[in-house]
Amino acid sequence: MPDLEYIFHPSSIAVVGALPDSSSFVTAKFLNSLIQFGYEGRVYPIHRRASEISGLRVYPSILDVPGHVDHVICAIRAALTPQLMRECAAKKVKVIQLFTSGFSEMGKEEGIRLEKEITEIARQGGVRVIGPNCMGIYCPSSGISFDDAFPKESGCVGFLCQSGGNSMEGVQLADAKDIRFSKVVSFGNACDLNEADFMEYFAHDPQTKIVLGYVEGTKDGRRFINALKEASEIKPVIMLKGGTTEAGIRAVASHTGALAGSNTIWSSLLCQLGIMQVYDLEELVDLTLLFQHWKPCRGKRMGIVGGSGGRSVLITDNCEKEGLTLPSLPSEVRRELRKIIPEGFDPGTSVCNPVDLATSVLDLHILPKVLEIVANYDGIDFSLIHIGVAFGLYRGTSEVLDKQIDSLIEAKRSVTKPIALILRHCGEPEAARRAFSAEKRCLAAGIPVFPSFNRASRAISKFVQYYEMRERQ
Amino acid sequence: MPDLEYIFHPSSIAVVGALPDSSSFVTAKFLNSLIQFGYEGRVYPIHRRASEISGLRVYPSILDVPGHVDHVICAIRAALTPQLMRECAAKKVKVIQLFTSGFSEMGKEEGIRLEKEITEIARQGGVRVIGPNCMGIYCPSSGISFDDAFPKESGCVGFLCQSGGNSMEGVQLADAKDIRFSKVVSFGNACDLNEADFMEYFAHDPQTKIVLGYVEGTKDGRRFINALKEASEIKPVIMLKGGTTEAGIRAVASHTGALAGSNTIWSSLLCQLGIMQVYDLEELVDLTLLFQHWKPCRGKRMGIVGGSGGRSVLITDNCEKEGLTLPSLPSEVRRELRKIIPEGFDPGTSVCNPVDLATSVLDLHILPKVLEIVANYDGIDFSLIHIGVAFGLYRGTSEVLDKQIDSLIEAKRSVTKPIALILRHCGEPEAARRAFSAEKRCLAAGIPVFPSFNRASRAISKFVQYYEMRERQ
Repeated sequence: MPDLEYIFHPSSIAVVGALPDSSSFVTAKFLNSLIQFGYEGRVYPIHRRASEISGLRVYPSILDVPGHVDHVICAIRAALTPQLMRECAAKKVKVIQLFTSGFSEMGKEEGIRLEKEITEIARQGGVRVIGPNCMGIYCPSSGISFDDAFPKESGCVGFLCQSGGNSMEGVQLADAKDIRFSKVVSFGNACDLNEADFMEYFAHDPQTKIVLGYVEGTKDGRRFINALKEASEIKPVIMLKGGTTEAGIRAVASHTGALAGSNTIWSSLLCQLGIMQVYDLEELVDLTLLFQHWKPCRGKRMGIVGGSGGRSVLITDNCEKEGLTLPSLPSEVRRELRKIIPEGFDPGTSVCNPVDLATSVLDLHILPKVLEIVANYDGIDFSLIHIGVAFGLYRGTSEVLDKQIDSLIEAKRSVTKPIALILRHCGEPEAARRAFSAEKRCLAAGIPVFPSFNRASRAISKFVQYYEMRERQ
Repeated sequence: MPDLEYIFHPSSIAVVGALPDSSSFVTAKFLNSLIQFGYEGRVYPIHRRASEISGLRVYPSILDVPGHVDHVICAIRAALTPQLMRECAAKKVKVIQLFTSGFSEMGKEEGIRLEKEITEIARQGGVRVIGPNCMGIYCPSSGISFDDAFPKESGCVGFLCQSGGNSMEGVQLADAKDIRFSKVVSFGNACDLNEADFMEYFAHDPQTKIVLGYVEGTKDGRRFINALKEASEIKPVIMLKGGTTEAGIRAVASHTGALAGSNTIWSSLLCQLGIMQVYDLEELVDLTLLFQHWKPCRGKRMGIVGGSGGRSVLITDNCEKEGLTLPSLPSEVRRELRKIIPEGFDPGTSVCNPVDLATSVLDLHILPKVLEIVANYDGIDFSLIHIGVAFGLYRGTSEVLDKQIDSLIEAKRSVTKPIALILRHCGEPEAARRAFSAEKRCLAAGIPVFPSFNRASRAISKFVQYYEMRERQ
């Protein structure tokens, strides 16, 4: 088991800074989440005056808690943290995570001094620190979360994230695509435990099959590089580096006080280590989605099937720009396709690649057969299907969409190569609802879904590159 | 008035190929749209056997129509079109638009021959042709549409679009952002009237203030270049060129039979002419949205206000990559901001640029004041606000969102420089619904809204470049 395993399995947690007020952000995020997630250890709200918060007995300080306190969640003001840290040391607390901000990220002497002070007290007292200026731990299998609306099921994705907000948005974006996490750790200013510790942990964590990272800077470059190298040799690692431009580096400094470093160095380092670099949270999640549903795919030759000639042209341009290729279909494959969509039957169709089904995209006997022929042609590595939801020239009813999804799921059984769906709509709420529900069905059937070709091709291109690169190694 | 004005104002229309079957695509798109849009001229469905379609009297051929026929919409099989074209000539029809496909875009001798034949008959008979393989005309002020769900109000955007599907999706995407059109023309294979004719028309059409174009290739390069040059001197022109890659050029050939030409030549040509080139329909609409709501903006210095430090970092990187800049705020502006969000009050905040309001993004007294200070600082040319809808660390209720939008609209009154809103959500239907309704309110108040920073920065960057370039000329 990795050394830091104990961090994710505390037997008791004290929440310092929760308020009796039911609208309290801290109470909602940190205390109520433990209750809602059914955390099985003891939970101790700490408050000087309150006697009960969220139905739990309150203690005036952690020193007053009768039993052992394994883990402390701290959300009091920065100025009060040295005293709390001394109490943690006295109580033999193993880990404290500090939501509290107002330390080195302020760029002022007082905050820097305070962060040094608490780090020193923690080190001397044998307390490990996550943060400050972070959300701490989300570990559904242990019933620990920093948001009560996060999924309660575990998954195989580990996420180390320097930013609290990005850890929140990352989990929410992933949740919308039914991606589940083994553990997420938001670690902010990283005054003690840092990106290297968590990367080492995730490298060896058997519950974690894919590692995602959002890092703004590193305190110990050499160790982090070693950790990245080690992790990437064992499992796929996807990195989102914050602060890749001049102004971004400045934004990083005022966010977590990190030194962002040069993007050229980061990019070439990540590339050398075989780590996928992405540029926003959406891309992070899109790429993870492919690792969840697609088996390794070493080729970049795609087949495209849909019902719009003009979109097909734009899609083709987009995919080629992302480094994917759309091979022409040989005459025997085209002949096969023409048996299903005869030329005279619907003259708007095209059996080149992209295959344009025109109105026949609504014909539920045609779509799955065409997909099978295209996907099973051995010049194609993977296939994309695009459907408009209440959108485009050939838009069906809600029922037609349901049946299209049925036939797609049915067709997937006879296709061994990866397929993905692009569901286009224009944002209108009813279309968004229908698209969301169709997406959920596809995800349950192992078909990744993307909202646009830009997003699909960007992610697929990196997915394919990853396996090409591993093959070369 | 431009020469082609009459095309958009026919006094009578015959629809050839509509069927009595209520599920007929052609009846729904072309015939019923005229009825639903309240087209005031005479409408004649043409069918050999039917006596009534959609409540209208049917004639067996256009020659049997008692009065004059100005405009014909043709959706019969390609093989039957030469005969129809002869009848059009005999009936002195001014314009025929052919939805019918199966001509040169098939890449086969028979289709090419047929297209030549109908073009020749049309020319000799004095009939102008739109298409074939197109959707024809959408002109709300005349009550003409190729979709009954298109908006019935007119606007100031003209759109010439070689692809039927892209014209449909373009109008729908624009509609979702309350962008309205003066005229849209989908012209397919362009055997007679082509991109140059329509560009010349839109250049001089007083109803059209912005021209959008989707073109796959040109039949008369010299004339089209002159038309583009002329149009771009009079109004903003945004071009989406289909077929910018090798496979895309192949896709174009099987779509409209056009010769796409080299993208390097197209790109440098458009750049020289001061025409904005975009790469997908979403970008086309995003950029149009800015022209609808923003006054000319010559600077690329942006202010960003929102409630997430980590997102702020990513946003900053993204905007700088798109060529926009985020200047630091001088100490006097930061002091002003700190009067509203005191340091001790919420330590997660940052008053650099991007301004991170942390939880205070939900405080309705703070957001508008901060926005005013940032936007009115003279080192800033425009400002972006980002809000998560049921998304991110600091997500409010539906009521909080409504009030945030209220205060944004209120704040806009005291800000003379452009502002835009980024509404982030994760696709969940209720969030999508709330975002859509918030977006509609902002659009009505003249605030453009984008679903992501990628989309916003990409469009804004081209918008700013456009005015920088015009200043240099």
